[in-house]
Amino acid sequence: MSKIKRLNNLILPQELSSLTIPQCERLCGEIRKKIIGTVMKNGGHLSSNLGTVELTVALHRVFRSPADKIVWDVGHQSYTHKLLTGRYDSFSTLRKEGGISGFCRPEESEHDAFISGHSSTAISAAFGIAEAMRLNGDNHHAIAVIGDGAFTGGLAYEGLNNAGKSKDNIIVILNHNDMSISKNVGAFAKYLTSIRGNTAYLDAKKKVEKILTETPIVGEPLKKFIVASKSALKSVLYHSTMFEDMGFVYLGPIDGHNIAELEEALRAAKKLRCPVFVHVNTIKGRGFSPAENNPGAFHAIPSVGYNKENPDNNVTDAFSEVFGKKLSSLADNDSSICAITAAMKYGTGLQHFAAEHSDRFFDVGIAEQHAVTFSAGLAKSGKIPVFAVYSSFLQRSYDQLIHDAAIDNTHIVLGIDRAGFIGDDGETHQGLFDIPMLLTIPNTAIYSPSTYSELEMCLECAVYLEEGIAAVRYPKGEETVTVGETDSDSYLLKNNGSNKLAISYGRIIHNLYNAAGSDTDVLKLVKIYPIDEEVKAICMNYSEIYFFEESSRSGGIGERLLAGLYQKGYKGKFVITAVDGFVKQADLSSCMEKYGLSENGMRKILEKVGSEKRAT
Amino acid sequence: MSKIKRLNNLILPQELSSLTIPQCERLCGEIRKKIIGTVMKNGGHLSSNLGTVELTVALHRVFRSPADKIVWDVGHQSYTHKLLTGRYDSFSTLRKEGGISGFCRPEESEHDAFISGHSSTAISAAFGIAEAMRLNGDNHHAIAVIGDGAFTGGLAYEGLNNAGKSKDNIIVILNHNDMSISKNVGAFAKYLTSIRGNTAYLDAKKKVEKILTETPIVGEPLKKFIVASKSALKSVLYHSTMFEDMGFVYLGPIDGHNIAELEEALRAAKKLRCPVFVHVNTIKGRGFSPAENNPGAFHAIPSVGYNKENPDNNVTDAFSEVFGKKLSSLADNDSSICAITAAMKYGTGLQHFAAEHSDRFFDVGIAEQHAVTFSAGLAKSGKIPVFAVYSSFLQRSYDQLIHDAAIDNTHIVLGIDRAGFIGDDGETHQGLFDIPMLLTIPNTAIYSPSTYSELEMCLECAVYLEEGIAAVRYPKGEETVTVGETDSDSYLLKNNGSNKLAISYGRIIHNLYNAAGSDTDVLKLVKIYPIDEEVKAICMNYSEIYFFEESSRSGGIGERLLAGLYQKGYKGKFVITAVDGFVKQADLSSCMEKYGLSENGMRKILEKVGSEKRAT
Repeated sequence: MSKIKRLNNLILPQELSSLTIPQCERLCGEIRKKIIGTVMKNGGHLSSNLGTVELTVALHRVFRSPADKIVWDVGHQSYTHKLLTGRYDSFSTLRKEGGISGFCRPEESEHDAFISGHSSTAISAAFGIAEAMRLNGDNHHAIAVIGDGAFTGGLAYEGLNNAGKSKDNIIVILNHNDMSISKNVGAFAKYLTSIRGNTAYLDAKKKVEKILTETPIVGEPLKKFIVASKSALKSVLYHSTMFEDMGFVYLGPIDGHNIAELEEALRAAKKLRCPVFVHVNTIKGRGFSPAENNPGAFHAIPSVGYNKENPDNNVTDAFSEVFGKKLSSLADNDSSICAITAAMKYGTGLQHFAAEHSDRFFDVGIAEQHAVTFSAGLAKSGKIPVFAVYSSFLQRSYDQLIHDAAIDNTHIVLGIDRAGFIGDDGETHQGLFDIPMLLTIPNTAIYSPSTYSELEMCLECAVYLEEGIAAVRYPKGEETVTVGETDSDSYLLKNNGSNKLAISYGRIIHNLYNAAGSDTDVLKLVKIYPIDEEVKAICMNYSEIYFFEESSRSGGIGERLLAGLYQKGYKGKFVITAVDGFVKQADLSSCMEKYGLSENGMRKILEKVGSEKRAT
Repeated sequence: MSKIKRLNNLILPQELSSLTIPQCERLCGEIRKKIIGTVMKNGGHLSSNLGTVELTVALHRVFRSPADKIVWDVGHQSYTHKLLTGRYDSFSTLRKEGGISGFCRPEESEHDAFISGHSSTAISAAFGIAEAMRLNGDNHHAIAVIGDGAFTGGLAYEGLNNAGKSKDNIIVILNHNDMSISKNVGAFAKYLTSIRGNTAYLDAKKKVEKILTETPIVGEPLKKFIVASKSALKSVLYHSTMFEDMGFVYLGPIDGHNIAELEEALRAAKKLRCPVFVHVNTIKGRGFSPAENNPGAFHAIPSVGYNKENPDNNVTDAFSEVFGKKLSSLADNDSSICAITAAMKYGTGLQHFAAEHSDRFFDVGIAEQHAVTFSAGLAKSGKIPVFAVYSSFLQRSYDQLIHDAAIDNTHIVLGIDRAGFIGDDGETHQGLFDIPMLLTIPNTAIYSPSTYSELEMCLECAVYLEEGIAAVRYPKGEETVTVGETDSDSYLLKNNGSNKLAISYGRIIHNLYNAAGSDTDVLKLVKIYPIDEEVKAICMNYSEIYFFEESSRSGGIGERLLAGLYQKGYKGKFVITAVDGFVKQADLSSCMEKYGLSENGMRKILEKVGSEKRAT
């Protein structure tokens, strides 16, 4: 075999199709090595990417990207795609500031047909692309690659429902590994598993069709077949799978690690020129035994401090841990407390609750809409539901929060995890919109603890002291250095009788405490909304106010406080330092620095303002 | 038959079960009469309510509300339920201020188990209730009644996926009438229709089971059966419907106008004590021939000016009409323009576009999430998608707007219909959150025309002058009296060199124009966001600003303008008059009055402020 056939020397994706199957297999080995090496260094998604290596190679051999459009759902399985489409050299910058994204980004490459990060969007996006192709007289294909986990989200079903009635060249590839992030849930997952095992499907179909055509009297042969293979018969006689009921031609299940078999199915799908559903069985973590054996633990690898020997010992999301343990302990004494997660049991620290109170623990799949409406249903029957969810995924519940909870002032508690900067996952995962979003909803209270102990207190307040929607928001990762014991009876952490007040909430209060000089008083908010009248009264004593928030500026707490103070006649300086626009991937400290929320950044803002003042 | 058996004399719902079937049938006639009479007077939903009379009577005979919980999806079919649960006497106040709601409101009656108004929520809510019942050791049933239209929404599927794997007493009743508001769409609808016709299902099942059990050799009888009834066989041999694949016992299809048949099925469902799916065929508009013949036109009846003879001639939503016609005319000259609706073709005025440009018109079902992601897919392939949607339903697209459109600055246009007060539909349908919601999303522009001609201009601007998300919001109903020809080159409608400025946008600008005395200048915003720097510059010339908006205050344009002016050093008076909290049903003028947005209300605010000023 010549040198040119190696990953770094091929002209990709074009030359892929010139390789033999064995050459492809060797290439897959190279790809896996590259992915494992990079992820262990940079962090990122491991199991999902190792599971889709052969599928991606086969896709790029059968289809011609970027003319054919491949839409990766979530995009955390797109590393092989990136390596095959011009990003081999930059792959070492994966998830680094200025580097390539861990998800699909159209601005990064013309081969990234659609942005990704959140689940269950791919079919809808690919169908939009397919309809545009039809209108443009373009005969290429739109392909959605979507995991069974993403099928727990209603948007995937809405996409299927629309695409299935079309005559477009749309191919939906189910990447079926029985996992979303932890074990996949729901009736549909059970259904998929029931057809996953049916490896004889394609053969059986031919066989039974033959029998039905050639046998004049249906007798012993058919009877035997019924006894031997009821489900195959069902799959054959008329319609068969749910996907055929939804208008798709169903091909599968295919061995997702057999390139020849994958190519055969994909070529068939390509020829059909109608909505086709290809069911591909893959093994998450394939080719890396620690990940194969424990795909959940190897789903996402953080960039530093990862214990590769025993991933279960990696407790890096410590706010989540504290939240999960506290909730479980509250539930020990209160049988009305229920916990809900949207496929993030471990990510949100709810494994403790699940272990202790399994009958009151609900993993609803990647279904944030359902999670809220379901919670409201629990609440209407006397339960106290606590939905733990990442900030950016809560965006999907906006209507349900308003319609199913807030209007009726139904008491549901939100544990908003990953609030604030999220670091290397980038724009799609930043937790910067939860506050502006919730501030638009009446009957809502928000707490933003800065330490573990405050988180415990806030959770208790949200559960027992509030009505309506009560949210507790806390960041990804661990508690940072504390500012010393806070007197919980006072808002002011520093009170020098200055005329200059700096305000913040959440973890950045520590930065502020250190940044504020002796000429600056410091006020910490913990219950950030509704804003306490006492806070406004304190503010009225100052002539300069500097508000810092690790949140989107537009519609945030700072603007709300300003409006409130203005009504009271405040006419002093009011400077808001917050986040504008979408925040690209970068490590936490870089994000903090960029938006003036680091200790240094805050000091500059406070001092610059001071010097401005001296100048006038 | 004694007098006590009449609707107004029965003790309901208790005495329902003592009636004979013929007595029930007579009662259904009474109910229909009452509904038709009231709706023709008060406005409201007609076709859907006439279709569910027998179903509701049967439900209340078999189940014991409020111990058994009936959750009505959308709730626009709950009038019979209201008449049977203590609201006969107050029924004449339907949709009136202070009266009973046209949807379910738990605060109105303990028989309204869950709030309703938006589609596809019932299964999730009922499942939450069912799980609470299980945890409470309560053996009653939770019942979701949901139309086939609502099944186009992904939330319904999320609910099914979760409920289907449970062991709860949850019953999902599909009210199948082949319509959402206009003709139902999508692959799933086609699937439902394919099983709807299969009236022999229950009988066939018994018959085939008998054959399979008793015939030692499968021969002629089975063969004949295969030929005669392929789909029945399919439904029988193993699994059958999609619902059984999803974990439900499937009963149906049932004739939804045959009380005895309905009761038999419901009693069977009740006995099963597991997730049961009951497929009920109904006829929308049943018993009122104009509505039966034209159920779409009789879906919702406005409270005044309805042409009962020919509902097609009722053009009451004139902003929608202007929008639809303008969009169609733009599309005449631009093949890249596509129109998308979420089951509201007529409501949004898109019937014109659909007739002229059918290949570029997409009715996606009640699937607002998909509508946005699909639109973004179209846009990525060079199309200009225009999604026309009611303000309150757009709430369901929040995450898709951020994730699938805004981050990548993808150009999609939103026609936000029913923006502002919506009148008699009440809290769930008010269009008051679209602005605060959109203001939280970067890369978004919003136009708010006050007249038909401005709407046409704004739509053109949104389509051609903007990038990213461009929204045009306009109210339900017709153009109100105009303020005379507006000079589009100037922001100021009245410019007397006063130090007092009143600002507004949208239809209430007319009220403001009339309310403002000679001491008040008037500024009209049309592109309301981002706020033009010139507007801020004008504002800086005044010492008093009064901002009026027909929108939620929290996170609205007023607060944003204040923040912007404050940055520029504005220290004058700034009074925002806007909407706080949820707005209950009342006619438009009453809503305007209540929130200080009527001409009178504005005058009072402007004068009161003036007199305050004089006092100080």
